[in-house]
Amino acid sequence: MRVGLLTGGGDCPGLNAVIRAVVRKGIEVHDWDLVGFRNGWQGPMTGDSRPLGLDDVDDILARGGTILGSSRTNPYKEDGGADKIKKVLAEQSVDALVAIGGEDTLGVANRLTEDGVNVVGVPKTIDNDLDATDYTFGFDTAVHIATEAIDRLRTTAESHHRALVVEVMGRHAGWIALHSGLAGGANVILVPEREFDVEQVVSWVERRFERMYAPIIVVAEGAVPVGGAEVLHSGERDAFGHVRLGGVGQWLAEEIADRTGKESRAVVLGHTQRGGTPTAYDRVLATRFGLQAVDAVAEGDFGTMVALRGTDIVRVKLADATAKLKTVPEDRYTEAQVFFG
Amino acid sequence: MRVGLLTGGGDCPGLNAVIRAVVRKGIEVHDWDLVGFRNGWQGPMTGDSRPLGLDDVDDILARGGTILGSSRTNPYKEDGGADKIKKVLAEQSVDALVAIGGEDTLGVANRLTEDGVNVVGVPKTIDNDLDATDYTFGFDTAVHIATEAIDRLRTTAESHHRALVVEVMGRHAGWIALHSGLAGGANVILVPEREFDVEQVVSWVERRFERMYAPIIVVAEGAVPVGGAEVLHSGERDAFGHVRLGGVGQWLAEEIADRTGKESRAVVLGHTQRGGTPTAYDRVLATRFGLQAVDAVAEGDFGTMVALRGTDIVRVKLADATAKLKTVPEDRYTEAQVFFG
Amino acid sequence: MRVGLLTGGGDCPGLNAVIRAVVRKGIEVHDWDLVGFRNGWQGPMTGDSRPLGLDDVDDILARGGTILGSSRTNPYKEDGGADKIKKVLAEQSVDALVAIGGEDTLGVANRLTEDGVNVVGVPKTIDNDLDATDYTFGFDTAVHIATEAIDRLRTTAESHHRALVVEVMGRHAGWIALHSGLAGGANVILVPEREFDVEQVVSWVERRFERMYAPIIVVAEGAVPVGGAEVLHSGERDAFGHVRLGGVGQWLAEEIADRTGKESRAVVLGHTQRGGTPTAYDRVLATRFGLQAVDAVAEGDFGTMVALRGTDIVRVKLADATAKLKTVPEDRYTEAQVFFG
Amino acid sequence: MRVGLLTGGGDCPGLNAVIRAVVRKGIEVHDWDLVGFRNGWQGPMTGDSRPLGLDDVDDILARGGTILGSSRTNPYKEDGGADKIKKVLAEQSVDALVAIGGEDTLGVANRLTEDGVNVVGVPKTIDNDLDATDYTFGFDTAVHIATEAIDRLRTTAESHHRALVVEVMGRHAGWIALHSGLAGGANVILVPEREFDVEQVVSWVERRFERMYAPIIVVAEGAVPVGGAEVLHSGERDAFGHVRLGGVGQWLAEEIADRTGKESRAVVLGHTQRGGTPTAYDRVLATRFGLQAVDAVAEGDFGTMVALRGTDIVRVKLADATAKLKTVPEDRYTEAQVFFG
Repeated sequence: MRVGLLTGGGDCPGLNAVIRAVVRKGIEVHDWDLVGFRNGWQGPMTGDSRPLGLDDVDDILARGGTILGSSRTNPYKEDGGADKIKKVLAEQSVDALVAIGGEDTLGVANRLTEDGVNVVGVPKTIDNDLDATDYTFGFDTAVHIATEAIDRLRTTAESHHRALVVEVMGRHAGWIALHSGLAGGANVILVPEREFDVEQVVSWVERRFERMYAPIIVVAEGAVPVGGAEVLHSGERDAFGHVRLGGVGQWLAEEIADRTGKESRAVVLGHTQRGGTPTAYDRVLATRFGLQAVDAVAEGDFGTMVALRGTDIVRVKLADATAKLKTVPEDRYTEAQVFFG
Repeated sequence: MRVGLLTGGGDCPGLNAVIRAVVRKGIEVHDWDLVGFRNGWQGPMTGDSRPLGLDDVDDILARGGTILGSSRTNPYKEDGGADKIKKVLAEQSVDALVAIGGEDTLGVANRLTEDGVNVVGVPKTIDNDLDATDYTFGFDTAVHIATEAIDRLRTTAESHHRALVVEVMGRHAGWIALHSGLAGGANVILVPEREFDVEQVVSWVERRFERMYAPIIVVAEGAVPVGGAEVLHSGERDAFGHVRLGGVGQWLAEEIADRTGKESRAVVLGHTQRGGTPTAYDRVLATRFGLQAVDAVAEGDFGTMVALRGTDIVRVKLADATAKLKTVPEDRYTEAQVFFG
Repeated sequence: MRVGLLTGGGDCPGLNAVIRAVVRKGIEVHDWDLVGFRNGWQGPMTGDSRPLGLDDVDDILARGGTILGSSRTNPYKEDGGADKIKKVLAEQSVDALVAIGGEDTLGVANRLTEDGVNVVGVPKTIDNDLDATDYTFGFDTAVHIATEAIDRLRTTAESHHRALVVEVMGRHAGWIALHSGLAGGANVILVPEREFDVEQVVSWVERRFERMYAPIIVVAEGAVPVGGAEVLHSGERDAFGHVRLGGVGQWLAEEIADRTGKESRAVVLGHTQRGGTPTAYDRVLATRFGLQAVDAVAEGDFGTMVALRGTDIVRVKLADATAKLKTVPEDRYTEAQVFFG
Repeated sequence: MRVGLLTGGGDCPGLNAVIRAVVRKGIEVHDWDLVGFRNGWQGPMTGDSRPLGLDDVDDILARGGTILGSSRTNPYKEDGGADKIKKVLAEQSVDALVAIGGEDTLGVANRLTEDGVNVVGVPKTIDNDLDATDYTFGFDTAVHIATEAIDRLRTTAESHHRALVVEVMGRHAGWIALHSGLAGGANVILVPEREFDVEQVVSWVERRFERMYAPIIVVAEGAVPVGGAEVLHSGERDAFGHVRLGGVGQWLAEEIADRTGKESRAVVLGHTQRGGTPTAYDRVLATRFGLQAVDAVAEGDFGTMVALRGTDIVRVKLADATAKLKTVPEDRYTEAQVFFG
């Protein structure tokens, strides 16, 4: 049997751990041939692939990124993309695919399944916004990095009696903000799921200053103020054609400075959150996902995605897997508010 | 209302995060008076306590250890211990206790409940061996530290073509060995749940050398060889009255050297695994445990312990909580073997 | 004898280590009374001080920031500032001051010496731009943090075939850029000491892509393009009144994207570089500075500053200490260019 | 021109950074052919070598260990060893050697120079005990790791009111103990340079407990008690043939427990101190050493070793370089004692 692998979408610590686990179990237990396709769905469309042996994956567990490269190519967005994939798989005698990726990659995997390709999905999202799994790998690493940054920023905030706004990832879901904010002891946490009232934020900030501490505000990049002031996102171009580095975080730091008269600074963590070596938690989760994906392929259980439920790795239908965005529920946000101010 | 807190048993990263969450929510939401008892059950037996206000807990989230101190004192192992506790609680007008600790501490909590004291338990064990909860805080930190050490040792093993044996915590359960071994890419993992065959270990080690890599063997301190060779545990006194530093790890390194003729070294991680700042994961889990403990007290739901189930914090009966040791199941260990050798 | 301490200017990992060393040696060896003045020169101007005993400094060695707070107050910029200081020192019977700070703080220290106050200076600058000392504490920590970030960004750059521009601190001197760029294996390093040619940068970037790797460009915030394109600094307000988060780094990322057609992103490390626990190197250096400052006070050797020369801690005249900015010399920059592209 | 490289002796973080710098500058600036000999002096004796190109060293800067492997082989300890080396160098047309290693490796390099081989040495010792250079790479990383461990152990010591003895590397020189002890805030530091009095150690320990803190004792593996009690070193075999894991650290922990009645534990950091990614400091130092070694070869300045003096990289005669062991001087040890107890 010959099994192909690919990684799609934004990179994420743990991708290499999945690849290693699939290759290792595929060879050791099933004696498969393993093939790595390069740069997401581009690989199986163009035939760009390489064989993957034990030595290729021996030293990659602890490395960030993906040895296969990634892309956002979507075969269903170009003419005959799916047919190209089928043709390449036939030419290279690939019987099944393990596709590691986020919502888009898994959506393609689902449609390919419907089109008769043997696919098993492995979920990947830094943002932890996939409803079908308790957690995805990469999220713990992102939270870990953001928390370390908050720990560092606290001392500089205290020494200078400044407010510090930390903008973390999370365009549609506030999980990274919520968890790193809780772990870092943030005094305000703002998430996309709930519009924030700048006046309320300022009152928390002022309460913190009154208690003789300096406030840390953690804000997800997708958070928006009530009434929807025109806040640019990081990475968007402004009216003058310049890419914004800091979006809502920068905007908020200025608002706080203007309204409180205190110094206020923004820090945008950006891509540091998604690179580098995965945490032990993510390495274990990614490894277990990979092992389960091999089982699914071996059992011919295609059209499925592996997922975490409690402490178990289970399988769910790809069709259901990406149906619903997992956002921060009301009660988790309310629970955190006890630490505000 | 007046609520007491204590921390018992071995220390564990995250204890301070629980204390902070209880104090913060107790004061901010319920306007309680909070009292910290010192050194485990010693505190409520002798009356050694201090008030806990917001300022006392403002800066402790990221700190290892416990600001309340700890001990292994068991009130049921001395005459009238439980009565002393009741008397102290009455004198200090403490209406309820939040007891943070492992099997022993929670066992006492359960008996005190039967004796009419209002107690809510918060589980704590580095070893992750409590069946009633998916995970306990402290475990992720221990695995993180052990994994970092394995990462470091790999390069020295490779450069010198040596076998390196890493002895990690786990007297009765092999969770730390299993998870750090998976995360660190160990070539052999040995756990207390399954007696190991030295010949088998040696064959994995030799296979690894043949592939031109150096083997890392992760062994839980409680692992024992088949047939039960007399292996001393770390910390036990040998026949000559000297405390052993390395137990099975040291023994195994010598066996490997003798049988393979290769250099082999042992490293015993010891107390570094349980100290220092908690990981973000453990800070969030400990914080959520603390918040839920406050809810339990507020609702008068005594005799319960907070626990993690999937992504939810729930409550279980203290009586059931410590009934069963959670050990590494057969299938989790078998699954990991694909990486051996 | 009664000795005062203060910390001025931007905060810097290691300030607390100096404070601890001064208090510890002052008490243990000389039996002095130690007094901490709050918020830089504000403290001795207003009399805002606190006694410092052994317990106050027992737990601060590893903490970032400064327990004394800081400010940029300059007594010579307001009427009678120096006289206020003399009056406060007399009122509080303070015989000598240890002033820990950068160019401005030490400049004040020097003028106060001329005005008859007993001062010993301890140099502090993240930027390492003080000519009178080989290194200052805080610099190693800043380089360490920037290097960690570069390590992380490398994997995300490689996976996505992107150019990543990392903007680090250094308004006038490129030491942090040079050292973190060397340590992180940057493919281009840009410093304020030498105007850069965008075309040259682009050619290094393209060479790197041709070799099938992704380029990392490390740029000091004060670096400027040849011809002086109008590049805003981070923190400055643009024409529309908005504070710029990313200055030259953001500008350069856009230029690279425009000229190469490759994706290019900027990350601005910002305040994370100056907060948090100091590295071991900085803790040792700061501690030794503190011990030497006590010796200087004990010997009545005022108007001096402690400094590192090779492996020795020496003293230099305050008057000479701040006379010259230490910038990256030509040969150090040329040496690094072998790694460009 | 054709230049060979080798790494000898115990491994050390930064070896790969030296290799990378030599290869990179050798190719980019001088257009040399570079050859890597495997496993120390074994390589040039047996001819075991590989060509080294830019791609071989592109990704190794941050990695611990050495891609060339290492050994303790000494050509002067076997018949005709030096002649074998000359023959291999002639056969492979290698014009000059860059030898990276400690005292033994550099001693061989010196004798080979006398025997007419073109050698440039690069010093490497975790222990920092080479007198001819201010610092060697690897030392900062070892101190960093030991300090992190001490930071972690402090919280567990405090929570349990225990004494913790941390045994660090340093058979003949106490630099790692001194620097990590200062950086970690140790309450006692013991070095090989000065016999320690157990009674004195106990009095410091007791003073610390009286002040309501828990003591951390940092002890170099080569430290010995006054009168020379028979303390085994880590790694030596005891009277019963068993390898000792903890030497003086374990012995001291037992003594403290016996004499104070307090719980006392030993932790032996062992090989974790020499593995893993180098600190930024060591990466920069190792890189600069490599660049300077290339300059020495290019200038035909053989029989020299590169060294750090202040902030400069200089060259010294190999003959002088290993003549003298650099131990902790009296005044540096006395200076540290202000923090004892």
